[in-house]
Amino acid sequence: MPCEFKAVRRVEFSETDMAGIVHYSNFFRYMETAEHGFFRQLGYSVVMDRHFETPMGWPRVHAECDYRQPLRFEDEVEIHLLVSEKKSKSLSYIFKFRKLNGTAPVEVARGSLTVVCVTKKADGTFASVHIPKAFAEKIEVAPAEMLA
Amino acid sequence: MPCEFKAVRRVEFSETDMAGIVHYSNFFRYMETAEHGFFRQLGYSVVMDRHFETPMGWPRVHAECDYRQPLRFEDEVEIHLLVSEKKSKSLSYIFKFRKLNGTAPVEVARGSLTVVCVTKKADGTFASVHIPKAFAEKIEVAPAEMLA
Amino acid sequence: MPCEFKAVRRVEFSETDMAGIVHYSNFFRYMETAEHGFFRQLGYSVVMDRHFETPMGWPRVHAECDYRQPLRFEDEVEIHLLVSEKKSKSLSYIFKFRKLNGTAPVEVARGSLTVVCVTKKADGTFASVHIPKAFAEKIEVAPAEMLA
Amino acid sequence: MPCEFKAVRRVEFSETDMAGIVHYSNFFRYMETAEHGFFRQLGYSVVMDRHFETPMGWPRVHAECDYRQPLRFEDEVEIHLLVSEKKSKSLSYIFKFRKLNGTAPVEVARGSLTVVCVTKKADGTFASVHIPKAFAEKIEVAPAEMLA
Repeated sequence: MPCEFKAVRRVEFSETDMAGIVHYSNFFRYMETAEHGFFRQLGYSVVMDRHFETPMGWPRVHAECDYRQPLRFEDEVEIHLLVSEKKSKSLSYIFKFRKLNGTAPVEVARGSLTVVCVTKKADGTFASVHIPKAFAEKIEVAPAEMLA
Repeated sequence: MPCEFKAVRRVEFSETDMAGIVHYSNFFRYMETAEHGFFRQLGYSVVMDRHFETPMGWPRVHAECDYRQPLRFEDEVEIHLLVSEKKSKSLSYIFKFRKLNGTAPVEVARGSLTVVCVTKKADGTFASVHIPKAFAEKIEVAPAEMLA
Repeated sequence: MPCEFKAVRRVEFSETDMAGIVHYSNFFRYMETAEHGFFRQLGYSVVMDRHFETPMGWPRVHAECDYRQPLRFEDEVEIHLLVSEKKSKSLSYIFKFRKLNGTAPVEVARGSLTVVCVTKKADGTFASVHIPKAFAEKIEVAPAEMLA
Repeated sequence: MPCEFKAVRRVEFSETDMAGIVHYSNFFRYMETAEHGFFRQLGYSVVMDRHFETPMGWPRVHAECDYRQPLRFEDEVEIHLLVSEKKSKSLSYIFKFRKLNGTAPVEVARGSLTVVCVTKKADGTFASVHIPKAFAEKIEVAPAEMLA
């Protein structure tokens, strides 16, 4: 059962800032690239309208990132998603960012996300719901040694 | 009847790129700042769900910009919207970007947008519709000398 | 001595995503709006090239955010920066996001940043340095009751 | 001699807006993805510091786009760059955006860029310069039938 996913991106010019490095907010966009690839790998889209009767979404309740080294234009970066927690209504991931340019990959940042499964109510607000069983059954928490 | 609107923004760090200037795509976001302020000035939101029975939107069919001088972090920029054309189902605007830092404003860029009034169909696609009369009556095309 | 700063923004259309709410990565851009306003209030720019002999910058080493309620297009949001820690080479802030639309402000999210004072070396990499005395002397940590 | 380049991207969640479609400003970011891939194909980076004695850049003087159909989350889009003009100090490209999801690619938008080769002066401003011969010699204008 899948507990991880790896996405690779090349840093775009528009993702840099005047300090010459990737703007720190973009690491949170990179996390989503891996998260959504993880969903596709399981046969789902993060926009679950097509899969279940009730349209569902996954708003974030917590996001964080520790930055060790900057990323620069045209760097190739691997975003390694690992499932760190699975609850009835929420999932947590950690993300290891590795720069692949050189011979050995270098971890440049590490982040995490906690997301909640919700359905959209008639008034436009969200209500948390149980993760659909068919989906939850496909996911498992990564072993401790992978999360370290 | 209103034919223009002026918005003022200060350039954000996250809007710059590694060349040390505002990324060119952000001028198109700045145009929207003025466009949406123009709508609010008329008593409307660009998201017209609240005003009319049918939810309406304004997708862009054409966008362009000529760049004369770069904008930099913390520059103060005025975005001057002028209505350049009003048709039954579409509007066109021009935008004059002026840097306000110095004593005399300097025009640093000029852009234009053509937007179409649409309603969302049941299948999620858009169909162009007539601009609501109550809204169209509030707008007029700017005189030629202002558009020059 | 200043220990806080409040910035107010109106949510832009381009900051929303297909879920109809502000994309979570944009809260990190909003934090910078308050941070850079805080610097200006002290008479400085976060780009310190003009103030000191050595060009200095403030890369982030940690960023996080807890999300309680979504923000939507045209919401007015106050970003309240509070200095939570001052070390010889780094600063930490917390950020309280309050939606101002209604009668009473509602806290919709809370974030934090830790930033390090660096200088750019000849090879383009960064080296952490002491925060300039003239600048550090202007800042103090917010009292515990404000940080709660 | 190369006169074209094709890049393929999958639409990211963070590139959509509350209308459920890719925000129009992101087509200008997509153009750069193809432009920078074109440079790499020629053995160059758009950041030319490494290739020539004088650091050079390519600011935009004109950008435009015509939108025919929206792009949505997870759509696969091909960005087809074609060189439309080559002058001593500037290049122009056109970009054909094709959605690849279905059996036959559908052109959803068409854009163009004019970029100028510049060097950065000591005071931080830009001065236009001749495109380096070694680089210019590698590029040719696409035949008229490809540009149609």
